Amino acid sequence: MKMTAWSVSGIGEIIPGDQLGDIIVDACRAEPNGPLLNGDVLVVTQKIVSKAEGRLVAIDPDDPVSHKQLVEDEAVRIVRRRGDLIITETKHGFICANSGIDLSNVERGFAALLPIDSDRSARRIRDIINAKLGVEVGIIVSDTFGRPWRNGLTDVAIGVAGIAGVVDLRGTPDALGRMMHVTEVCVADELASTGELVMGKSSGIPVAIIRGVDPTWLRDSAMSEIVRPAQEDLFR
Amino acid sequence: MKMTAWSVSGIGEIIPGDQLGDIIVDACRAEPNGPLLNGDVLVVTQKIVSKAEGRLVAIDPDDPVSHKQLVEDEAVRIVRRRGDLIITETKHGFICANSGIDLSNVERGFAALLPIDSDRSARRIRDIINAKLGVEVGIIVSDTFGRPWRNGLTDVAIGVAGIAGVVDLRGTPDALGRMMHVTEVCVADELASTGELVMGKSSGIPVAIIRGVDPTWLRDSAMSEIVRPAQEDLFR
Repeated sequence: MKMTAWSVSGIGEIIPGDQLGDIIVDACRAEPNGPLLNGDVLVVTQKIVSKAEGRLVAIDPDDPVSHKQLVEDEAVRIVRRRGDLIITETKHGFICANSGIDLSNVERGFAALLPIDSDRSARRIRDIINAKLGVEVGIIVSDTFGRPWRNGLTDVAIGVAGIAGVVDLRGTPDALGRMMHVTEVCVADELASTGELVMGKSSGIPVAIIRGVDPTWLRDSAMSEIVRPAQEDLFR
Repeated sequence: MKMTAWSVSGIGEIIPGDQLGDIIVDACRAEPNGPLLNGDVLVVTQKIVSKAEGRLVAIDPDDPVSHKQLVEDEAVRIVRRRGDLIITETKHGFICANSGIDLSNVERGFAALLPIDSDRSARRIRDIINAKLGVEVGIIVSDTFGRPWRNGLTDVAIGVAGIAGVVDLRGTPDALGRMMHVTEVCVADELASTGELVMGKSSGIPVAIIRGVDPTWLRDSAMSEIVRPAQEDLFR
């Protein structure tokens, strides 16, 4: 099995009201690696989704209190707090730093909030690509989250369309023919991470294409596959 | 930037005493995708490292108590416990289910423990590849861990050689020319996840090659970059 990932060039600064699907279609048409194919997965960073959807709020960049207030407004619960670091649970059920609000790669004086419904954002992009290019692709809206116990951030999925969130390999015999215990793999997060590796953080390239994904993973899905219900969670 | 990942075929069942570096060299020599190149990163699953290093212990597969005892013996601390699920901190500082002990893809009646020092395991493989094939590659020993808040497992690094654990992008200007806040990316975990996507869980292919990795990430490293010290951690 072979998989290829590359970043899509030619996507300029995104502003509120931009139709992201159209912009991605145009960029993909100009791709030196050729046209999109059925089964390709596109990873699209949250930042441009939030910008296109107008999820920008004015802040005073020199006033940490207003930033903190915004973080709390976007949270349904404060999970941990230490110094300036606030880990919150968002309305979507994501647990992340600062309610996912980010100031980098956003015009000074503004903060980008998470999309209201990233699955819907992903579906909209998928539908436009399908209508204009006639291909069935998967879309992952990605964001960069920290995690407990390990240093460094990794990119994870915060919205999915047409690509599985979690693939259930429970009951699939292992290579020795024995039934496996529990192996539910979050392929959407792994694909988001793969996308991050080719986009880079400071280069500002907001879309990656991944080709060669297991075709059985291309199916209807939603973030509810990935977000663990609080009552099943041991760490909040 | 373009990255390609594929699984390496032709690696048979690994038994204690096998020299994994030699076996991987032979498999890579027979690779239909051509020879290894400088800067390639190989993801090697923990399972075959543990097997080659003889980290197998006999257990009674029908006696859950003996399994539980083994999990506790391999732990330095129990982090959470609910029903049959035990989240522990291992001697390496990893926090994972069952001290990383796994029964799948291991002969019935045996359990595979984590390698004693996966960085050393990774270095040994890297050195053999370098000596026999004359190429400088990065090696990631990967394992499949769960995480809080999100369903599904993802593959992460438990040993590294010649490839960065965490890449520090703090202070790198973002695309708008402003200094970024904190962006330390755990590229080793993201590469482990990429490897998992092409290996698959039940197919039993234990090695993946990733080509096209940012060359600045190919450097000396150790898991100490990734393992967060307890005093800096908010979730234990």
